[in-house]
Amino acid sequence: ESGALAKVQRILNSGLAPVDVAHLIESSPPKARKILWELVDKELEGEVLQYLSEELQSHFLSDMSAAEVVDMTADLDTDDVADMLQQLPERVTQEVLDSMDQVDRARVEAILGYPEDSAGGLMNTDTVTIRPEITLDVVLRYLRRHKSLPAMTDNLLVVNRQNEFIGLLPVSKLLVSDPQQTVREVMTTDAKIIPATMHDTDVAKLFERHDLVSAPVVDAAGVLIGRITIDDVVDVIRETADHSLMSMAGLDEDEDTFAPALKTSRRRAVWLGINLITALAASAVIGLFDKTIEQVVALAVLMPIVASMGGIAGSQVLTLVIRGQALGHLSGANFRWLFNRELIVAGINGILWAVVIAIVTFAWFHDIKIALIIGSSIIINLLVAAITGAALPLILKARGIDPALAGGVILTTVTDVVGFMTFLGLATLFYL
Amino acid sequence: ESGALAKVQRILNSGLAPVDVAHLIESSPPKARKILWELVDKELEGEVLQYLSEELQSHFLSDMSAAEVVDMTADLDTDDVADMLQQLPERVTQEVLDSMDQVDRARVEAILGYPEDSAGGLMNTDTVTIRPEITLDVVLRYLRRHKSLPAMTDNLLVVNRQNEFIGLLPVSKLLVSDPQQTVREVMTTDAKIIPATMHDTDVAKLFERHDLVSAPVVDAAGVLIGRITIDDVVDVIRETADHSLMSMAGLDEDEDTFAPALKTSRRRAVWLGINLITALAASAVIGLFDKTIEQVVALAVLMPIVASMGGIAGSQVLTLVIRGQALGHLSGANFRWLFNRELIVAGINGILWAVVIAIVTFAWFHDIKIALIIGSSIIINLLVAAITGAALPLILKARGIDPALAGGVILTTVTDVVGFMTFLGLATLFYL
Repeated sequence: ESGALAKVQRILNSGLAPVDVAHLIESSPPKARKILWELVDKELEGEVLQYLSEELQSHFLSDMSAAEVVDMTADLDTDDVADMLQQLPERVTQEVLDSMDQVDRARVEAILGYPEDSAGGLMNTDTVTIRPEITLDVVLRYLRRHKSLPAMTDNLLVVNRQNEFIGLLPVSKLLVSDPQQTVREVMTTDAKIIPATMHDTDVAKLFERHDLVSAPVVDAAGVLIGRITIDDVVDVIRETADHSLMSMAGLDEDEDTFAPALKTSRRRAVWLGINLITALAASAVIGLFDKTIEQVVALAVLMPIVASMGGIAGSQVLTLVIRGQALGHLSGANFRWLFNRELIVAGINGILWAVVIAIVTFAWFHDIKIALIIGSSIIINLLVAAITGAALPLILKARGIDPALAGGVILTTVTDVVGFMTFLGLATLFYL
Repeated sequence: ESGALAKVQRILNSGLAPVDVAHLIESSPPKARKILWELVDKELEGEVLQYLSEELQSHFLSDMSAAEVVDMTADLDTDDVADMLQQLPERVTQEVLDSMDQVDRARVEAILGYPEDSAGGLMNTDTVTIRPEITLDVVLRYLRRHKSLPAMTDNLLVVNRQNEFIGLLPVSKLLVSDPQQTVREVMTTDAKIIPATMHDTDVAKLFERHDLVSAPVVDAAGVLIGRITIDDVVDVIRETADHSLMSMAGLDEDEDTFAPALKTSRRRAVWLGINLITALAASAVIGLFDKTIEQVVALAVLMPIVASMGGIAGSQVLTLVIRGQALGHLSGANFRWLFNRELIVAGINGILWAVVIAIVTFAWFHDIKIALIIGSSIIINLLVAAITGAALPLILKARGIDPALAGGVILTTVTDVVGFMTFLGLATLFYL
């Protein structure tokens, strides 16, 4: 047993890359996680921790003293250290900062000064800066004095005496140009410059559109304060994309797949509670028509079809619009076109499926009245579903509510209520 | 009017970057799209086209002759040309290939020989290769003979006489090392090498885990055939993430937000048809118990609650497992733990909401029997939902069916059928 543990320990600390150890820990149930984490060597803890999800970072960090955190983060990039510190209580963060050396401390504090989801929170402070007046030959000799360059250094950053950003010297240009030229002659001045306050999803769009590997970050005065690299942007892209998927099921994109049962139950309970209210609203509508159902039980048999077809059609529109918003494809001008298109689509599919369902209903219950009523309800509910699915994300977004989280619940409430109301209402009108 | 058009034309061809023109075209309804595309200068068409979605590429390409396609793609990267050619009919592709010069043709054909979703289909063929025995000084002089280096050249690729890949010389290492050293002394030999047949999602995982900017692609014999860069990998990451979101609503991740109404209607109709079958199955179950409903109309009022709570709980588990699969967190060993956790969660939430719903039901209908029946049905349906939501993605994946596409429909069918069956079945048992 202890032989097996020693073997695992050896694999964790010398066989696997820290990122793979982190992946292994994330893929393990709570107990195995704890054991694995304890087997990781002290020197590797920081490396492993930086690849873990925020939830797990804060879980493991909460057991550590400030001194241990300082030791562990000594060799990490400043942006990763800043990310970790954000998972700690204010008091511990201060203690950790106090025990760092002055340079590192200033760097981490620069990042902590910006929100986590801004360019400033995403940036790294390890930049290689040069002056415009020197020759490329001097640059080459200057670089050779370094032991290594920061990861993903595809550009050297050109700054003036006030450390204001004035241009980029791509490494690829440095390599192919005549060494006697000056930096100013070779540098590019139309670089994408990122203000520290830019939202991280906008940073991601900029990187995606212009195929960037890194980009300089400046403060409000134009002073260079850091650099964002594509590896951190990829995390933002992945999280943003995950967010819509998870939110639509009422889950958090940071959701830990292997969270303990009690924690999971508590989180899920909230979502079920919200949806219970939806279900009760639908039931209340049905309750209004209990006399009609008593007389024609076929209505109870058929009513879920009307609600369900509306929900399905609406959620297609909702998903399309939410995705369009995320990609930046939707604005006021083209939304009008999309809205009309969705009404036409709902009309076409409404008529198509109304006919099919009416035929099925007639074949089943041999009642032409009920067949006509369900057909009309399907058309009405599909039109309402299209309007709701298209308009809801815009209304919610304008009010600062996340469409991916709230959209589905509200849509289902509308299509359920309208579906039951039209179907049972029309039936009451024509039967009683 | 024509003055305004000329203005737009000027903006399109000199004011905006090609990627922004592509974004504008993607964000426009069909008619505006056609006009915009016609205003783009012939020389820029290729640049713009490479940023459009596959659906739009094939739409615009279908109007072009082979000669026009050759002209348009002359200045593009080989991987982008290959991507476009894959949107053309076989006959036109051959014609285009025939009219290319020999070097370009060989390069494009090398890519076309691999599936679009493999490393070979994703790679670019413009690599900078060097021999291990030369000194860094010679490398620097060799590079200076180039006008420019391919985009995202963070590594030079070291090959032997047979063009077999033997190592990487990171540009950052080239810059900080003593020029008298040989490539062999400085190069790294533990590079991540990508076989041309690797699936593109696995390539993306490798890039994400190891923070790569580019990686060499080799064929089965170990011969270097190309290079994959992070910009193309980001597209794969975005598409993979989009896929789950869109599939769950029965949409395609390449879905054009502004497709014409008729095309959209046809695609959506299929999904509505599939879901109608689900709804009819649920109705059939209700139909079995029409005599019971006739006697106790409250059952018709309450039954959607049981089905809906099951659907919501199940889709949370389903989404979590599908995400876990995509992240590579789930394997046989930890799935067992997850399955048990979900059963416990379903038990806890089942009991909690069964009590709440039973109380609401009793307050509403003053009938203790019906309150107990709905409570029990909720617990049973939540347990079934958890089992289905957890097991379904694994079963579907093992059979080569996409869980994101089929999972939701099957889950809803199960929770509807089981929900109505238990609730109405128990009622029939205890009332009649």
